[in-house]
Amino acid sequence: MEFVTNEKLTIVGAAGMIGSNMAQTAIMMGLTPNICLYDVFSPEGVAEEMRHCGFGEVTITATTDPKEAFTDAKYIISSGGAPRKEGMTREDLLAGNAGVAKELGENIKKYCPDCKHVVIIFNPADITGLVTLLYSGLKPNQVSTLAALDSTRLQSALAKHFGIRQGLVKNCCTFGGHGEQMAVFASPVTIDGTPLLDIIGTGKAVNGVTLSAEQWAEMKKAVTQGGSAIIKLRGRSSFQSPSYVSVEMIAAAMGGKEFTWPAGTYVSTEKYHHIMMAMPSRITADGTYCKAITGTAEELADLNKSYSHLCDLRDQVIGMGILPPVSEWNKVNPNL
Amino acid sequence: MEFVTNEKLTIVGAAGMIGSNMAQTAIMMGLTPNICLYDVFSPEGVAEEMRHCGFGEVTITATTDPKEAFTDAKYIISSGGAPRKEGMTREDLLAGNAGVAKELGENIKKYCPDCKHVVIIFNPADITGLVTLLYSGLKPNQVSTLAALDSTRLQSALAKHFGIRQGLVKNCCTFGGHGEQMAVFASPVTIDGTPLLDIIGTGKAVNGVTLSAEQWAEMKKAVTQGGSAIIKLRGRSSFQSPSYVSVEMIAAAMGGKEFTWPAGTYVSTEKYHHIMMAMPSRITADGTYCKAITGTAEELADLNKSYSHLCDLRDQVIGMGILPPVSEWNKVNPNL
Repeated sequence: MEFVTNEKLTIVGAAGMIGSNMAQTAIMMGLTPNICLYDVFSPEGVAEEMRHCGFGEVTITATTDPKEAFTDAKYIISSGGAPRKEGMTREDLLAGNAGVAKELGENIKKYCPDCKHVVIIFNPADITGLVTLLYSGLKPNQVSTLAALDSTRLQSALAKHFGIRQGLVKNCCTFGGHGEQMAVFASPVTIDGTPLLDIIGTGKAVNGVTLSAEQWAEMKKAVTQGGSAIIKLRGRSSFQSPSYVSVEMIAAAMGGKEFTWPAGTYVSTEKYHHIMMAMPSRITADGTYCKAITGTAEELADLNKSYSHLCDLRDQVIGMGILPPVSEWNKVNPNL
Repeated sequence: MEFVTNEKLTIVGAAGMIGSNMAQTAIMMGLTPNICLYDVFSPEGVAEEMRHCGFGEVTITATTDPKEAFTDAKYIISSGGAPRKEGMTREDLLAGNAGVAKELGENIKKYCPDCKHVVIIFNPADITGLVTLLYSGLKPNQVSTLAALDSTRLQSALAKHFGIRQGLVKNCCTFGGHGEQMAVFASPVTIDGTPLLDIIGTGKAVNGVTLSAEQWAEMKKAVTQGGSAIIKLRGRSSFQSPSYVSVEMIAAAMGGKEFTWPAGTYVSTEKYHHIMMAMPSRITADGTYCKAITGTAEELADLNKSYSHLCDLRDQVIGMGILPPVSEWNKVNPNL
């Protein structure tokens, strides 16, 4: 078995459904023979399952001790937030998971400051990624968050609508926040080679199928509610797609296949700053890098709205005392 | 993306934890772009998750209709039984799951008699595989059952004991029934090149570690209870390892990498007959074929005991009227 690297990959939240799937996915992708499973609940059962798969060349350790988990970790993926429980407000969840992210960042700074890349997927990932980045002391291109599922959901929805293979729908992307405030961009999308903007509301057909402006508006709405749709269908929140796609992200950072879906990344431009959000981006062994955003006036207005929403969330977390005021970030992490 | 074949793979029980993992595993292994998910509960949520992974070249259908699921299916994996709950023996599941297997076999005969290979993993798999084989009308080398987890568990236990990489423990195998009556064979096993029989109770060390006869007896017992151990550790029955290994089995039948762990297969020798059990075997594109069993007198006695236990189980199912008497099997399936 050949591996992309021999460096240590630590999976945080590994006892859960997402984390345990990440472990299997990472091993199947041949990322590294050096995998550590970490959780506050023992992930030993997951480690045992992986051993029982007979992956002979992979060494899997399981631990509840952060020191053991993070020491020498070069790559980290974390799904290790708390799920939203009954009676919990959105703010309770925000405070709880922002706190978890702070602790994660501090553990990285303490035990593995030489860590090369971290992928964060626990919600709200735009915020938890930002908090992790700040406290880890890492550089902005070393921390990314899962934001691609909205784009893959859009791709899937368009493929179904036009009755074509999913791979024939290209350049699907949503930018800004991951949630109902996301900005869905039609302008880069092509449907079997035809620009989507030439199709929406024009009567132009691909594979004999048209797409009205109303249908497109409905589809955009459905995409922003893709997570709830899975809960309705499966009776549980999605766990296979988030884990698979986030492992693809870390795989790219480890030197595997480049990741070309949008990633949540720290943004620092004149227009958008001190925020983490989905951007046109690439992940390679050099980390995440952003490209310029282009789109229609309407799309850019949607993005501005999504950005404002994220700023509000960030400011709530500053209000909670979990993040310091923006003006002091540089003292905590000189890379920001 | 290149695929092993373009033929249809149907995953039965796809809405469950094992089935949904099978879907992801099969797609990640690049087995075929033509995957059908079937369950009595809609597997649409699982299909949606797979689409949201962005596997662009794979077409995934989800259905609760057996006709749609089985028509043209060339390969089938089924985890479609009732799950084993804590405290339940495999035998408790017998009646219900044997009935499910009969229906599966009948669906195969009705909708896809040209099916090339079927892997059965719902418990007790030795029986459900046998029932499926009988009613499907397929040839004995076209139906196999998951039996390798006992061997991978043994490999993992030995690797941990000796503190070596799992791949350095070779030829682990358990034969006969998959359950507490299985026969664990030490004689083929080597530990980093040293025969296990030269180590047990002799004081001979590998990597500075010895293995007493008592420790070996304990380890054998632990292996036969490997499934319960996972339930205790994870709070749920194993699902990742059974799905991964069973997809490896169907992958081999589809023309992928040969499967060399023991498989449950129909046995028809002078000594063992009209039974399905784990044998020294290979799965290739030509199906499953068995090799002769060799072992110590004690190992062969254990196997005889396991075989007798399986015959009892089979006879129970005959008593229930789900299987006809052995003398009439040939009328139902002329290949037996």
